[in-house]
Amino acid sequence: MIGIEPLTAAAFAPFGEVLDATGEPDRLINRGLCGRWHDRAQLDFVAGGRAGISLFRARPRSLPYRLEMVERHPLGSQAFLPMTADPFLVIVAEGQQALPGRIRAFLAAPGQGVNLRRGCWHGVLTPLHEPGLFAVVDRIAPEGEPPGANLEEFWLPEPLTVA
Amino acid sequence: MIGIEPLTAAAFAPFGEVLDATGEPDRLINRGLCGRWHDRAQLDFVAGGRAGISLFRARPRSLPYRLEMVERHPLGSQAFLPMTADPFLVIVAEGQQALPGRIRAFLAAPGQGVNLRRGCWHGVLTPLHEPGLFAVVDRIAPEGEPPGANLEEFWLPEPLTVA
Repeated sequence: MIGIEPLTAAAFAPFGEVLDATGEPDRLINRGLCGRWHDRAQLDFVAGGRAGISLFRARPRSLPYRLEMVERHPLGSQAFLPMTADPFLVIVAEGQQALPGRIRAFLAAPGQGVNLRRGCWHGVLTPLHEPGLFAVVDRIAPEGEPPGANLEEFWLPEPLTVA
Repeated sequence: MIGIEPLTAAAFAPFGEVLDATGEPDRLINRGLCGRWHDRAQLDFVAGGRAGISLFRARPRSLPYRLEMVERHPLGSQAFLPMTADPFLVIVAEGQQALPGRIRAFLAAPGQGVNLRRGCWHGVLTPLHEPGLFAVVDRIAPEGEPPGANLEEFWLPEPLTVA
């Protein structure tokens, strides 16, 4: 069984960046009416890929959550930006080797997104509430790249319970 | 006075893309549990810039809204992805010339973001509700670029009322 930790920048640093508007903004724009927290994600797209914006809508899960598989994207970072103010689960695994290491689960608070480092093992998108809607900034493959070139899956020998 | 139109892909096409998860997804992923509306924004960053993710938090406005200025970014597209399910105003102007053309105002529904084409004249970010929180995908300037190289402003001869 895996406990759920609060999502903080420090705890999440091995896996990527927490994307939120906490602390002072880097800049004030629009005559002081808007704060800008500038360039908060380390976008990293290799092998001819480029950044793109897609929408994901995932079926909400409930707790306890049964984790059977983790995946990763060897060719690009992946940012999940919730389009509703609902918490969601972020499941990651330590280590960047061929086998995932210790699994961790974080609860993203309303107003928090994440950017997963390229090659970070992670669970699939797990909203906890309808509509499960996210904007995703990840790698768009160049034409002709074989499907699946940017996806590795690892099925756990035994499912884990996240609660 | 400018009336407010619903935000649809067809009406907004001259200005950029509506980013939402309507219609059938382009792909089903995660064993059918997640739809992917793939690569929906025309990201366009020139002159050494690159894509980045920033967070904006803007003070909510109320209607009628007094529009005094439009701006544009000659060096890059700019996507606004709301992180709450609240509608917000999207004000744009027709034409890509040095002087903005006819001004239009759209109401983005919950679950809708926009990507503004490079060079599109637009009003500053105008949420209508707290917390006014958005993820923004726009151009990150290369080091050494003069501040303001990617910003032009046009002050209207007379303020317009948007309602």
